Order: sequence, then structure tokens, then C-alpha cells
Amino acid sequence: MEPSLKQTVTDLAVRARAAALALATVTSASKDRALVRLADLIDGSHAPLLAANHRDLEAAQAGGLSEAQVDRLRLTPARLAHLANSVREVAALPDPVGEVLEEWARPNGLKIRKVRVPIGVIAVIYEARPNVTVDCAVLCLKSGNAAILRGGSEIFHTNGALASLVREALAREPGIPADSVQLVPTTDRAALQALLKLDELVQCVIPRGGEGLIRFVAETSTIPVIKHYRGVCFVYADRSADPAMAEAVTVNAKVQRPGVCNAAEQLLVHAEAADSLLPRLARALVSRGVQLRCDPAAAAILKREGIAHGAARPEDYSTEFLSLTLAVRLVGSLEEAIATINRDSSGHTDAIITADPEAARRFQAAVDSAVVLWNASTRFNDGFEFGYGAEIGISTDRLHARGPMGLKELCSHKFLIDGAGQVRG
Amino acid sequence: MEPSLKQTVTDLAVRARAAALALATVTSASKDRALVRLADLIDGSHAPLLAANHRDLEAAQAGGLSEAQVDRLRLTPARLAHLANSVREVAALPDPVGEVLEEWARPNGLKIRKVRVPIGVIAVIYEARPNVTVDCAVLCLKSGNAAILRGGSEIFHTNGALASLVREALAREPGIPADSVQLVPTTDRAALQALLKLDELVQCVIPRGGEGLIRFVAETSTIPVIKHYRGVCFVYADRSADPAMAEAVTVNAKVQRPGVCNAAEQLLVHAEAADSLLPRLARALVSRGVQLRCDPAAAAILKREGIAHGAARPEDYSTEFLSLTLAVRLVGSLEEAIATINRDSSGHTDAIITADPEAARRFQAAVDSAVVLWNASTRFNDGFEFGYGAEIGISTDRLHARGPMGLKELCSHKFLIDGAGQVRG
Repeated sequence: MEPSLKQTVTDLAVRARAAALALATVTSASKDRALVRLADLIDGSHAPLLAANHRDLEAAQAGGLSEAQVDRLRLTPARLAHLANSVREVAALPDPVGEVLEEWARPNGLKIRKVRVPIGVIAVIYEARPNVTVDCAVLCLKSGNAAILRGGSEIFHTNGALASLVREALAREPGIPADSVQLVPTTDRAALQALLKLDELVQCVIPRGGEGLIRFVAETSTIPVIKHYRGVCFVYADRSADPAMAEAVTVNAKVQRPGVCNAAEQLLVHAEAADSLLPRLARALVSRGVQLRCDPAAAAILKREGIAHGAARPEDYSTEFLSLTLAVRLVGSLEEAIATINRDSSGHTDAIITADPEAARRFQAAVDSAVVLWNASTRFNDGFEFGYGAEIGISTDRLHARGPMGLKELCSHKFLIDGAGQVRG
Repeated sequence: MEPSLKQTVTDLAVRARAAALALATVTSASKDRALVRLADLIDGSHAPLLAANHRDLEAAQAGGLSEAQVDRLRLTPARLAHLANSVREVAALPDPVGEVLEEWARPNGLKIRKVRVPIGVIAVIYEARPNVTVDCAVLCLKSGNAAILRGGSEIFHTNGALASLVREALAREPGIPADSVQLVPTTDRAALQALLKLDELVQCVIPRGGEGLIRFVAETSTIPVIKHYRGVCFVYADRSADPAMAEAVTVNAKVQRPGVCNAAEQLLVHAEAADSLLPRLARALVSRGVQLRCDPAAAAILKREGIAHGAARPEDYSTEFLSLTLAVRLVGSLEEAIATINRDSSGHTDAIITADPEAARRFQAAVDSAVVLWNASTRFNDGFEFGYGAEIGISTDRLHARGPMGLKELCSHKFLIDGAGQVRG
């Protein structure tokens, strides 16, 4: 790559690091004023924002994107109003920074406090939807982190217009450096690669987008990454599942919003309950347009009952369909359900439907996933449904954050120790 | 690399993953019994352990290692007795797994519990000292994690003998898979590279050793890494520092154990106090064999007082000496001390000595390091000094763990949600 591109990214990260050090001790009131000002600026800037977005939409249409793809890039007055309101909601949340997480004294008199602090500089690498630019900037700012945003080329102009508004809102607030939020001024892949090696300046990378982007970031970055690969989520209807509840939960998990990561992709049914339970669940799903891909045992039951279904291929058992497709298998026992999920799910969200508390507790203890539900839809793995008031993503990692990531998950901690001259003997 | 080497490492990780799933729900009593049995086995196996160690020591001497280097590899009856006792101490610690970290109910009636669970499979990559094999195996086991241990070639035979004992202790405990602790059977670099790409099977990598090893792991791994690069720790003697306290803390931080990461590498003195304070600190340090590398302002004072010192080179200001060498600089203000530390320290451990509480609070808030002390030695950044009862390392990362890492830091969490058929609208 040309040295100047690497230098551009490095200079940007140096400015971000300086901004992060200042931002770490900015007051909550100051951050919230900047956020409310941003919301007002968005409300007052529909014309230039829509104009910038129009340039991106024209290029997308000329580039042959489908109408559904173009729509994901589109800003509208209603979407901008919604965006401004979401910024106001974040401003109204409690500041996560400064909370004393633990506090204790040692026999030698040292007082130790573990205090929540910002992570530092966070790089967010994302694709497509323009609201991500504002969402990520706002969540990073509220949690005291400097943000480096690197959006996709499809919305280059929209991102630039939104980032300018963010910087305008920050610049008017004394004490908050404008460089607290910066946009990488190029979508060149080489610039991204250079950014992902700046582990002395950037403390965390959050990729948001398809699995290809996330894998590229995870494989390239020497900076710690918080990521979410796939949501291959299971619903397991146990022997003692209440049929009406199993139907309601399975239908909701699959159908309510099939394109998101916490939608169910697979149904397991206990073989001893399958004769009565599976036809009911299958009819409810098929009547809502769901295509079932069944193992031979499930297929035999559905064939007997005359319910539409297809045969599953081996890869269907670990596929994130993100559509109205559901893999279906029978299992001989609770333990087989657990082993199947631990082998084939993506560790994101899995649910058991059962009237048996012992089975539920065993399932929750043994299933190795971020969120394990008993008698509730997988769709509840979500920062807003958890009551966090905001969400930057859902982590399938084990370190730092696992499950929904709100403002607290955008923070680190440090230890403050007060002494009276103590030394080690 | 030969396919068989990659296959060997993959097979090992597959077994580790299966072991981790079983280990996650093993009782505390069972894990503790295995640990006590291991301690007894170490006590009863001095002869074969010392024989295996002797082979490594002979190879090390033949290979031209210095006597100090060879001594780091050496097992003795006293060191083995100490090792066995440290295993018993870990067995006596509380089990971190299963603790409910947070618990709340949502308006829709869902009950959410955040529960501490093992991370899963942890790979520990380390060099030299043989006790690390047992320490890491024991801490991983206690926290419910399967361990993959990859030691250095210098103690290949010693590690093999110790790992055999660990596996013997585990094999006798029903419910604990022997594959909970596995040693990579080769020190081939290609095998390590293959291991570090197995992000579907291994959840965390902890490198322990020199900066070269740690950087190699961080750059190669697609698995999240918890690491500790360098301890470039500062002591800042503020304008109002009590001279006797400043002397005691600075001497302790530098001299008590200069070869470790939490030893001080640099002293900053407020210029307004330097005329009286610096000569006292310098005399105390020099009389204990410390070589001072001074900036021109500090050098001028020491020259006037006739105290031995040298001139600092620019790189000395961010060097981890790990020896009786100390960089010394004057700063014009508290803010200059903070900015200097945030630029040149490694974010590990930094201390202020001051009688001014406001200065102390500002320093603790603004210095971006894992541990920030007021009137105490940097040497207190340590898992045992924190009261953790164990330590697997000290993290200079911001994600997951920052500062001393005990058993809790070897854990992740998951969310268990109990419902009554809730679905999303």
C-alpha cells in the first residue's frame, strides 16, 4: 500500500487516542448535552442528509443492487426522526463510567477499588445501514470511548454527512474533543488492514456485518475483537412441553422476524412426544409459510399426517437460514438434545420448552450458549429486551462480553489503590 | 507443514472441547479432590520428576545456556514441595463457577440471571519455568476450563512428566475427563500456528513469556488472546510528597524485585520539590546499586550534589529494564506527569506519592493504567496482594481482564432466562 494511506490511518488513530484520554474524565452532563445537540442537528438537517443519501442510492441502483438492498441504505424523514429520538434515548440513560464495581480493604491497610472506565479507542467496522454510523458514535461517546468508524462504500456520502453532524455537535461542547468521533476517510481495504494493526493506539474492534467481514476482521486484527459470527438458534420441545406453549414459542422464534440473528433456525422434538407434538407445531409453522427440512424420523411423522416438508441435507443442521426455513430433528432424550445443540448451534441463543423444572435446569446448565431460555422465545436475546436501553451488538465470544452488549459492555475497568506508604516485604 | 501435525493439534482440541463441556458441570468437591490428589502425587513422585528435569538441564547446559537460565528450569525437592502446596491452596479456594452475578425481572415476567461459567477451552503458551505447567493446569481445572498447554522446548521432558501426573490425578476422579488437561506433544512452531487458528474449538489463548512470544501469539491467533506485553511502571513524586514515604515507596518499587513486571522503571519528580526530594531519593537508590538515567534537569541537580548518575537516551523513557536501572525525569506539574505517563508507561501500574488528596484523585482518574496507586508501591499489582489467592498473570489489555487475573478472570458468563411462554410482539 502507499505509505500515505497508512500514515493517514495512523494519524487518525493518534488523534483518537488523545481524544480518548480527554474524554475519559468528561462529565456525564457534558456528554449528554452533546448528544441532545446531535439529535437536534439531525432534526434540523433532513435536506442535506437526504441529498447525501440520494447520491449513494443512485450509485447503488446504477451498480445493480436489488430494491431490497437499496432500501436498507435509504434514509427517509421518518427514519431520520427515529434516529434523532434514539440519540435522545441514549442521552437519557445512566452514565456507565465511574461506577465502583467492587471495593475492599487488605490486611495491610490498602484500599482497593475496581472502577468502571471507558475502553479507550474503539474501531467499529460496518456495512450498509446508515443508522449504524450514528448509533455507534453515540454509544461510544456515552460510554466515554473515542470512536473510529469505518463504514461500507455503499453509503460513503451518507456516512460523511452524518459524521459531520456528529463532529459539529461535539465541537460545540467545551471539553469534548471533536476527534472523539472520526470517520476513516476511505473505504480502501488497505487502509482497513493498516487500521487493524494499530494495537498500540486502538483498544477494541467491533465488526458489524456479514460473516465474511467479521471473519476478515478477526483474522487480520492484532487488536482485540468483540464479534458475533452467526445465530444458529435452537428450540427444543421436551417430552413434557405444553403443546400450546411449544407452538406459540416456536412460531414466534421462527416467524416473527426471520432475518435476524436470534430467530430460531432449528427445532428439536423429544421422540416420545413427537407423535402428538410435531404435527401441531409443523401445521402452525407451515401455515405461516415456513419450509421444514426434516430428518428421516420427523419426516416419517409429517408424511403420515400429510404435512408439507422436505428432507434435510447434513449442512442444514448448522445453517443460519435467516429466512422462513427451519431444520427439524427428533432426539431420543434431553441429553441428546443438549449434545446436539452443543455440537451444531452457534452458541448464541437456545431454548427449551418443558413443564419439567429438572429438565430445564439441566438444559440451562449444560447448554454452552450465551443465552439459554426456558419456556420463552429465542427472540428475547436482545439488549432492549434485557432492559439495557441500547445495544451495539450481540457477542458470541466468551471474553469480555457474551450476549447483548449495552453501554456497560463498552467499558473496561481499572483498579485504584489508596495507601499510606505501604511497601512489599 | 505436514498434514499430520495439523491433524494432531486439531484432534487434541476436539478432545479438549468435549472435556470442557463435561467439566463445566462437574461439582466443586470433585474438582478439589482431583487437585488434592495431584498435590499428593507430586509429593510422592520426586524421583521421576527430578530425573525428567535432569534430562532437560543436561540439554540446556550442553546448549550453552547460562547458569541463571539453567536455574530457572531446575526442579528441586524444595521447589516440588512448594509446588504441591500451591496446588493445595488452589483446591482450598472458593469455586468461581455458578455464582449468580446479576439477577433481574422484566416487566413481561421474564427472569434473567447472569451466571458465571467457565470460558471453555483455554490454550496456555509459555516458556521456561516448569511450575507454569502445573499452575496453569490447576487454575484452569479449578475454574472448570479444559487446558491445552504448550510449553517451551527447554523443559520438554519435565513438562511431560508433570502433565502425566496431572492426568493421572484427573483419571482417578469419576466425571472429570482426563483430556481436561492436555500437553501439545511437540514444540514445533507449525503446530503452535495451527493451534492458534482453531477458533471454533478453543475460546481463549493466554501467552506467558517474553514480549517476542506474546507478540507472535497476538499476531497469529484468530482466538481471543489475554496478554501482558510489558510493565513500564512509573512512580511520580508530587510537589507535596512526604520525603520519607517517597523514599520508601520508590526504593521498594525499584529494588525489592527488579526483574518483575510490576517493578518501577521510571521516577518522575515535581520540579518544585526536586531540589530537596531528588537527592534524597537518588542517594537511597544509588546506595542499593541502582543506576540512574536522568534527563538534563534531574542530572543537573544530581551533579551539583555529587550523586552518581548517567544521561538518559530517548528510548530509556519507555524501556522495561527489568534490572537495577531507573530512568529519572523532572516534570513541571501534575498534568505533565499524567501526560508523560499516558504517553510512555505501558498502562500496567503507576503510582503517585503525594499528601494532596485532590492531586491523588486527579492522577487516579486521568492515568489510563490497569492499577493506579496513591502512596503505595507499584509491587502491589499482584493477584496474591489483591487477595485473589491465585494468579495466572497480569493483563494489560482492556477487554475481559485488566490487572491481576485470578480464578474469576478465567471465567465467562451466560444468561439463563426463565419464562412462562413469553413471545415477542
